[in-house]
Amino acid sequence: MHYPEHLLKLVQCLKKLPGVGHKSAERFAFHMLTWTPSQLAELAAIIRETPYKLFPCANCGCLLDNEYCSYCDLSLRNPDFLCVLAYPKDVFAIEETREYRGLYHVLGGLLSPIERKGPEHLSIDKLKHRLELLNTKELVIALDSTLEGDATALYLKHELESLPIKISRLAFGLPMGSSLDYVDGGTLARAFTARNQY
Amino acid sequence: MHYPEHLLKLVQCLKKLPGVGHKSAERFAFHMLTWTPSQLAELAAIIRETPYKLFPCANCGCLLDNEYCSYCDLSLRNPDFLCVLAYPKDVFAIEETREYRGLYHVLGGLLSPIERKGPEHLSIDKLKHRLELLNTKELVIALDSTLEGDATALYLKHELESLPIKISRLAFGLPMGSSLDYVDGGTLARAFTARNQY
Repeated sequence: MHYPEHLLKLVQCLKKLPGVGHKSAERFAFHMLTWTPSQLAELAAIIRETPYKLFPCANCGCLLDNEYCSYCDLSLRNPDFLCVLAYPKDVFAIEETREYRGLYHVLGGLLSPIERKGPEHLSIDKLKHRLELLNTKELVIALDSTLEGDATALYLKHELESLPIKISRLAFGLPMGSSLDYVDGGTLARAFTARNQY
Repeated sequence: MHYPEHLLKLVQCLKKLPGVGHKSAERFAFHMLTWTPSQLAELAAIIRETPYKLFPCANCGCLLDNEYCSYCDLSLRNPDFLCVLAYPKDVFAIEETREYRGLYHVLGGLLSPIERKGPEHLSIDKLKHRLELLNTKELVIALDSTLEGDATALYLKHELESLPIKISRLAFGLPMGSSLDYVDGGTLARAFTARNQY
């Protein structure tokens, strides 16, 4: 379709968002045409300021709120535990559970040969340094249960098993409220293997 | 969840996009955190400039490309026909068919008592003025086949039937490639009523 040039630019930019194809990007762009200039300027300002207002803590990699990292504050958190995560967003999901009061360490991704992401792209050296410095007792690996997540967890285990630290990984099993009929075979098999005394 | 303030602002803004709920807005926001500052600045600049680069033609209401409205150029278009549309985006769908070479008139919406949108919010007076000025022979109503579209089409018919102009509306019937099994009753009834000599 012969769209005005600026509309094409907007659509091309919006298509970079995850799960947004050409049709959705067009829909977003046409919807934005109905916004007032001040609404558009507000969104533009927020997007432009994002890298300067939302950046990761230099120590743990979690997102900072006003340059103070509450996740690194040893008066609030227990340094005996350190939880390894792939992305800063995962911190929020774990905090929501209110099960964990230890420290965090964000790797910044997962090992992925297809995306040419090797160990040198993850903050593994810093993790080792922090483990020594903090005298951590247990390292909790909280990575995805995917091929990349499993590979990264295994790599971490090999790298860190020489240290005098207990290494654990999040349990696999039935999701809460699930029915056996609808649980996939892989999950059921792991739940079976990891069965507990009841 | 306790998100940083700037992240909350970004999520709130992205939720204004059509079909984007809280979860999708969060996903967009976290994805944007992986963009480079220059990518974010580019999107911000495009959004901010939108009202100044993409605005409707003062005459027909179609979107302008570089301050020139090819849809109003009488050397390219046939002034005997004028097609009434609700939104500027509808122009692109009709142009794509290559069936129509007449002029356009964008109303800027549809009558909708629920959204408190009455005839005074649509550019109907200007439409009348243009019809007289252009000495139009046929007015083609190309509005949605919804309650609001039908109401607006009926209103236009009542307002304009005193003028010496043929008023037509897009045909209703079976979509191309459709099977009778899957066509809804309303469409089938209208296709039946409007059946043609074959």
